[in-house]
Amino acid sequence: MSEVYEARRARLRDRCNAGGSQAALISRPANVRYLAGAAPRGAVLLLGKTEDLLVCVGPPDGRPADGRPDEALRIHTLPGAGGDPAVAAADLAAAQGGDSLAVEEHHLTVARHRAIRSVVPRLRLADLGGAVEQLRVVKDEEEISCLRIGAEIADQALGELLESILVGRTERHLGLELERRLVDHGADGPAFPTSVATGPNSGRRGHRPTDRRVEEGDFLSVCLGATYRGYRCEIGRTFVIGTSPADWQIELYDLVFAAQRAGREALAPGTAYRDVDRAARQVLDSAGYHEGLPALTGHGVGLEIDEDPQLAPAAMGKLDACVPVTVEPGVHLPGRGGVRIDDTLVVRPEADGGPELLTITTKELLAL
Amino acid sequence: MSEVYEARRARLRDRCNAGGSQAALISRPANVRYLAGAAPRGAVLLLGKTEDLLVCVGPPDGRPADGRPDEALRIHTLPGAGGDPAVAAADLAAAQGGDSLAVEEHHLTVARHRAIRSVVPRLRLADLGGAVEQLRVVKDEEEISCLRIGAEIADQALGELLESILVGRTERHLGLELERRLVDHGADGPAFPTSVATGPNSGRRGHRPTDRRVEEGDFLSVCLGATYRGYRCEIGRTFVIGTSPADWQIELYDLVFAAQRAGREALAPGTAYRDVDRAARQVLDSAGYHEGLPALTGHGVGLEIDEDPQLAPAAMGKLDACVPVTVEPGVHLPGRGGVRIDDTLVVRPEADGGPELLTITTKELLAL
Repeated sequence: MSEVYEARRARLRDRCNAGGSQAALISRPANVRYLAGAAPRGAVLLLGKTEDLLVCVGPPDGRPADGRPDEALRIHTLPGAGGDPAVAAADLAAAQGGDSLAVEEHHLTVARHRAIRSVVPRLRLADLGGAVEQLRVVKDEEEISCLRIGAEIADQALGELLESILVGRTERHLGLELERRLVDHGADGPAFPTSVATGPNSGRRGHRPTDRRVEEGDFLSVCLGATYRGYRCEIGRTFVIGTSPADWQIELYDLVFAAQRAGREALAPGTAYRDVDRAARQVLDSAGYHEGLPALTGHGVGLEIDEDPQLAPAAMGKLDACVPVTVEPGVHLPGRGGVRIDDTLVVRPEADGGPELLTITTKELLAL
Repeated sequence: MSEVYEARRARLRDRCNAGGSQAALISRPANVRYLAGAAPRGAVLLLGKTEDLLVCVGPPDGRPADGRPDEALRIHTLPGAGGDPAVAAADLAAAQGGDSLAVEEHHLTVARHRAIRSVVPRLRLADLGGAVEQLRVVKDEEEISCLRIGAEIADQALGELLESILVGRTERHLGLELERRLVDHGADGPAFPTSVATGPNSGRRGHRPTDRRVEEGDFLSVCLGATYRGYRCEIGRTFVIGTSPADWQIELYDLVFAAQRAGREALAPGTAYRDVDRAARQVLDSAGYHEGLPALTGHGVGLEIDEDPQLAPAAMGKLDACVPVTVEPGVHLPGRGGVRIDDTLVVRPEADGGPELLTITTKELLAL
């Protein structure tokens, strides 16, 4: 695995040098993990002029699920618990003879930035911006394979829930049961707080489970994901509780399904992010749901559950092959509930069969 | 409840004005919640020159467990999803006629700070520092009551676990079961990732559960906590699995117990933080455990699980009444395992009976 991390660091180093900085300080945990194989708590990565270093506050001793640091990387452990690894790393960058250091200004706090400047005043600080986040957008097959396994786990957990009795159970308990099942099937843990929404709560993005119980006739919408070796996927489905859905429920479901399909079908290398969003959005729009639509139709997934790209009306950029994204339109009618359908897919060229669906649980409207 | 939040904001405003700033921007979520009653995702609080505002990215619609915003507080919702509430709040501060704004430099990123400066260049930005964290150290009886309920919940969850069969189960499953029981008993959720450590893992602070199974003769150390109405407590216990503990286990347990008791007994208004730490530490020290001792003996708890004060050798300051802290010394012998004992207590004057123990599960060495 070491070559993978070295290659990633080499690519970042090229960008960094092109931007006029000899060294870079990576502090955002997902970025540290991407480049170093692991992100022990508080650790930062120094991409140094002469040597790269993982700077930790204590010996890195996480679970295997948290990743193991790249063996080619020297680990520098701070002696005390009070030190700031970012300040120590900047000091080491200066000791390597560098005179400039790019930092992640979108992650580093003003106070830490100031501490670095005061400890190493002769170091010129620049902004690395989202350079690592950009490298992370296109995944290699190893990363996609982790997402694929995570999606299988989420499908299994959801499938088992559907076989159990649901009426009378609370959103909160269903959410906890799903999270237990994720771990039972080998997940490191949930990819994000599991959302279970019933009745009037159904269809709300990011709904936090309450003590409301599942009732006959409810819409039940569920959104969950597994973390597998650090990679996070997402699936969302909506079901009806009871023997037969009401007409408005069937209509609304069909509409959101059509929007979600339009979004999925728009996924192709070269398609603008905003065009994927528009494909899904206009289905809902033309049915009269202008108001209250979510701000985005989908987003990238990987070491974080919500990463670049954003599939949204104002997003700039185009899809590449091997970019995993969610497609997750939804409609929520205040007081009545609603529908969300959410898949994780990998963008693939037409010649390879088009977008690869990772979350394969059926999208038929099931009456449970 | 509104008066509570208003009084807290008034106290902060006094500090802020004394520091020469007319307004303050609170961005750290626990601080926002402390002053506004709730911290919807991404929201910031403006303590304005003429009016206080909670600035949100969307309508605040959390669960009751996430708190409800103080009704006396006007909520300003950003129209789009792309805006930064901190920048919007700074703009509103300027619109109120202020010329200075104190921000939380230990929380705000360099990029956001820069965005504020570029949007509202005429506003002089100052550092609020840890002013809100300092206000949060001493708790009122309402806050202590939330911690007390949380501690009861954690005691219940732990008590039930002890009644079940443990041998053969994995650390990971025991951790998940404890977290489910916390929620069953009314917790909002776990206060932090539950730690279950067996055999050679036992006694390690912050150990993340693995797939190791409980075996006869193991030490089993467990650390968990409940969040109740946002307040987080902590309890840690160590047990022996099997009929009778080995001599080294009894000796080590007695030693850590003595250290923990010494720490608890040192808790009193006016005692220096470092003296509490020293009381516990010297018991371990004089038994020959100089190396590998944790960097701290305990810490404050509240809206965050690890807040001020730190009970550590270099900590500055003295305990006040009504400060809840943990006392949690431990010893871990590499390859063999170890012992941790952890309580949450509230500092009370001698006249009120001394420190109030919130986590009441027995600290006898139980053989399970």
